[in-house]
Amino acid sequence: MPPATAQIAALRAALANTSRPAIAMAAHNPLTAKLAHEAGFSAIWVSGFELSASYAVPDASILPVSTHLETTRAMGEVQPLPLIADLDTGYGNAVNLTYVVRQYEAAGAAAIVIEDNVFPKESSLRAGPAGAKRKLAGIAEFQGKIAAAKAASSVLVIARTEALIAGYGEAEALERAAAWAEAGADAVLIHSKAKTPDEVVSFCRKWDGRVPVVIIPTNYPQLGFKEAGELGKVGLVICGNHTVRTVVEAVRKTYKKILEEGGIEGVEGDIASVQEVFKLQGDGEMREIEKKFVR
Amino acid sequence: MPPATAQIAALRAALANTSRPAIAMAAHNPLTAKLAHEAGFSAIWVSGFELSASYAVPDASILPVSTHLETTRAMGEVQPLPLIADLDTGYGNAVNLTYVVRQYEAAGAAAIVIEDNVFPKESSLRAGPAGAKRKLAGIAEFQGKIAAAKAASSVLVIARTEALIAGYGEAEALERAAAWAEAGADAVLIHSKAKTPDEVVSFCRKWDGRVPVVIIPTNYPQLGFKEAGELGKVGLVICGNHTVRTVVEAVRKTYKKILEEGGIEGVEGDIASVQEVFKLQGDGEMREIEKKFVR
Amino acid sequence: MPPATAQIAALRAALANTSRPAIAMAAHNPLTAKLAHEAGFSAIWVSGFELSASYAVPDASILPVSTHLETTRAMGEVQPLPLIADLDTGYGNAVNLTYVVRQYEAAGAAAIVIEDNVFPKESSLRAGPAGAKRKLAGIAEFQGKIAAAKAASSVLVIARTEALIAGYGEAEALERAAAWAEAGADAVLIHSKAKTPDEVVSFCRKWDGRVPVVIIPTNYPQLGFKEAGELGKVGLVICGNHTVRTVVEAVRKTYKKILEEGGIEGVEGDIASVQEVFKLQGDGEMREIEKKFVR
Amino acid sequence: MPPATAQIAALRAALANTSRPAIAMAAHNPLTAKLAHEAGFSAIWVSGFELSASYAVPDASILPVSTHLETTRAMGEVQPLPLIADLDTGYGNAVNLTYVVRQYEAAGAAAIVIEDNVFPKESSLRAGPAGAKRKLAGIAEFQGKIAAAKAASSVLVIARTEALIAGYGEAEALERAAAWAEAGADAVLIHSKAKTPDEVVSFCRKWDGRVPVVIIPTNYPQLGFKEAGELGKVGLVICGNHTVRTVVEAVRKTYKKILEEGGIEGVEGDIASVQEVFKLQGDGEMREIEKKFVR
Ligand SMILES: [Mg+2]
Ligand SMILES: [Mg+2]
Ligand SMILES: [Mg+2]
Ligand SMILES: [Mg+2]
Repeated sequence: MPPATAQIAALRAALANTSRPAIAMAAHNPLTAKLAHEAGFSAIWVSGFELSASYAVPDASILPVSTHLETTRAMGEVQPLPLIADLDTGYGNAVNLTYVVRQYEAAGAAAIVIEDNVFPKESSLRAGPAGAKRKLAGIAEFQGKIAAAKAASSVLVIARTEALIAGYGEAEALERAAAWAEAGADAVLIHSKAKTPDEVVSFCRKWDGRVPVVIIPTNYPQLGFKEAGELGKVGLVICGNHTVRTVVEAVRKTYKKILEEGGIEGVEGDIASVQEVFKLQGDGEMREIEKKFVR
Repeated sequence: MPPATAQIAALRAALANTSRPAIAMAAHNPLTAKLAHEAGFSAIWVSGFELSASYAVPDASILPVSTHLETTRAMGEVQPLPLIADLDTGYGNAVNLTYVVRQYEAAGAAAIVIEDNVFPKESSLRAGPAGAKRKLAGIAEFQGKIAAAKAASSVLVIARTEALIAGYGEAEALERAAAWAEAGADAVLIHSKAKTPDEVVSFCRKWDGRVPVVIIPTNYPQLGFKEAGELGKVGLVICGNHTVRTVVEAVRKTYKKILEEGGIEGVEGDIASVQEVFKLQGDGEMREIEKKFVR
Repeated sequence: MPPATAQIAALRAALANTSRPAIAMAAHNPLTAKLAHEAGFSAIWVSGFELSASYAVPDASILPVSTHLETTRAMGEVQPLPLIADLDTGYGNAVNLTYVVRQYEAAGAAAIVIEDNVFPKESSLRAGPAGAKRKLAGIAEFQGKIAAAKAASSVLVIARTEALIAGYGEAEALERAAAWAEAGADAVLIHSKAKTPDEVVSFCRKWDGRVPVVIIPTNYPQLGFKEAGELGKVGLVICGNHTVRTVVEAVRKTYKKILEEGGIEGVEGDIASVQEVFKLQGDGEMREIEKKFVR
Repeated sequence: MPPATAQIAALRAALANTSRPAIAMAAHNPLTAKLAHEAGFSAIWVSGFELSASYAVPDASILPVSTHLETTRAMGEVQPLPLIADLDTGYGNAVNLTYVVRQYEAAGAAAIVIEDNVFPKESSLRAGPAGAKRKLAGIAEFQGKIAAAKAASSVLVIARTEALIAGYGEAEALERAAAWAEAGADAVLIHSKAKTPDEVVSFCRKWDGRVPVVIIPTNYPQLGFKEAGELGKVGLVICGNHTVRTVVEAVRKTYKKILEEGGIEGVEGDIASVQEVFKLQGDGEMREIEKKFVR
């Protein structure tokens, strides 16, 4: 049994409940994953964008898979939510993905997401060259990757299509989503960077629902979680980048204030106490181990 | 020449200017290091406490040195400030430290800090058992480690004493600081968890100034940077944990709001835009490389 | 259930069969682990000495735990034998060991070995200063570590005493072994660097057999596996360093021959073919994945 | 200045001496790199094939770049020869390579080799499907990668063409080699898996010599180092896989003997002593540090 058997089952059940989608929060380190659990989210999105941003490098296949894998593992060590691992294009072909997905299963992932971009990927939300369609993976090729991932492990496989973002239109998006489901995907992620929910809403209306839909509404935040549920097709909403965006803004403010005021006293009221951080570090459990075993 | 030759020189000069101490900010990943540079700090404190907190584990020799070393290296890849690496007790004896300090030099560190705690360390600010003095390293032993680190590399060695925190009093603190300077330390870090600056102020008054003093005023934030400068002995003030404390507070707020409001629209005004994050990831440089070399 | 449940059970059974001890071979990378499985050994000794030697650094707490942990994990990915992880002194106190042993369990280890040396350790077989007894961990302290490791995971805990090597004599060795068993150790490893088996034979005769004994007969190779079985107490014999020693000798010969002959033709008959290496790399399984899934 | 400035200069000079090519030996860990230095080779080939084999996985873009990068760094820490890093297809496009080559420079590499295979690569010597030509990177695309690598760092860039192996013939091989040189490559690697040196000899005769040629004569070992020099074009001969092939054969023999004889006594004469291994681990230097600094 994979280490995350319980989380896989929980996530599978959550995805199936399309009248009330599960909400996953993006995290880029174990601390933020633990905070997401504490807050009440249902899953962690181990986001390639967030992780790349935390290293201050582009989300463009620059960090090695090992960095993402170890982050996933470390998140599982400190909190119990299902981990949904963002594998980008899958780190190669079906062979490479076979090796990789086994490692994610062993690391405690409950699901992986692979996308039909071409390696090396670039961030979906990045402005591309005007008028040019981004190239996508072939349908048969990507189906092979989905099937390989399913054959290699028990983790859920969420297959993402960039057809809308890459400019191929709704028909292509629907065809690809259907092909992903046919190949064994447990859910399909339809990505859109339209400024309104219309694209995604229309897709959901036409989607036959054979597997649940996953969305990442960064660019169309008007679509609330309840409205997503009313579409009847969405099993999971991913908040894709709100942790690192929060960090950037808040850290900038603290830094500015400290330097302007010439000291650290003024920020005390704005930030968590050291004791709060100790608690998040598991100081309580450490004290119990000390009491029992440090002699 | 070590990769951080310029940073070593800059930090050495900054430490010498005890009328206007340099200010270092704690960071736990390359992104926050880059933000600290952007804000105008003079150095990055590659804090063991912050890094442990970002992994949600106690600051108690639990993370392997490799995690800290790779974080240091990654910080140097994305911003130019001197990196001051928190090596805790030095990861073993003088032999181990020799191996470790060479790796930090190669990773681009400008300085290391070692402390006279006993391995495995625990966080200095953690409440200890009432009435018990924490054990410290022997003076000769610790001098050997300082000398070994100096002999092994060109990075600055900042030697920290926990004499005040461990309950041995000011005389012991002064004796240890003098012993560290005698052994070759480039600066001494006097750590205090008193709730007022008195301990540190008194120490500075009695310190003969043969090498600069470094302080981490977490518990006595009343001491501003200007006041620290007026002591005439302090070359560096380290803001020891304000990044991760900011993160905890701000991330908790965002998460709460998203779940309470049932959507991500409401936090948009509170957090950085995706475009802002792209910029911090070096999207501009990536576009230049693309234009020149991707054919 | 830990990932290595089957291996834990197999190793436990093998240890119990003290009339015919299991034989473990030291390995320093997944390839040599796979070769040990192919040859017919019963377990892999993930040796700190071998691993350090493969990095050309002393076996003296210099490699970070992460390097050893990742090696253990990678060995488990490519062959099915139980992995016995050499944890040296346990990477800290009972708290640190608690964190570490959980990670080894997740990495697929079937057993860990911890030794009563003091951190930072040095290689047991290294010549020490004449006349000086090496310091050992206190009995209660080490019992706490054993108990902590048992409480933290399901992997077998093999507790090693260096009492003979450190010069404290047989009575101390027996007392420590008994204390380790009392604290919950699944087996005790009695280490000796005597040039004959006498020390270990005498220890085994006096040992009451409440848990099996493990030996590493590097310095007393006269003791064959059959003779070890005849002692009736030994559940496991570890070949502690024969892989890396083989590598050094053989690689030196190949290198010398190539340079002396001025070409690579002459060594062809002495070394494995490229096709043999392909097989060990799992080329067969890769071809099957390709056939099924690469489209 | 890059950390390997001296090694870069030495390798550049060696490459230029085409009447007496430098000889590089493949290594897969720091120990074998150190043995190659000891034996008298001129450079270390940080071979992807050897490293993959040491992990018992196919040489097919399965190991993450971080594993290879860290191996390169660790090799540089223990021996002084120039390190020639096998970067396969460059881990992505010109952007990715830019990031990667900077990291190799910081890790102490003297040169990188990139090949015009398509990601994910497979081993050049592996039997492909009958009658099918392996796809290669476009010429302009690969030139962009060479130029990007040159712009990003000071390490030497050796550009490899698989035109012969992929079945495109000599004219294509010459055209590609010329294009690589034009784009800034410091040397071109012409790879062949013919069973005789004819292909490579013919290539060298027609090559105008504007930059030196590098060869890996695994499949045509008849070509000695002296004969390679007589071609007047070859600056470097790489022994591409002889270390791991030696290891497989020798380790198999030792394992077999130990199990057949039922003990470790019989192999003592065949393998290096523990003392020999201590020496290779730098025990001598460790003792000096101990004497000076461990108090
Ligand atoms: Mg992503
Ligand atoms: Mg610290
Ligand atoms: Mg050992
Ligand atoms: Mg290769």
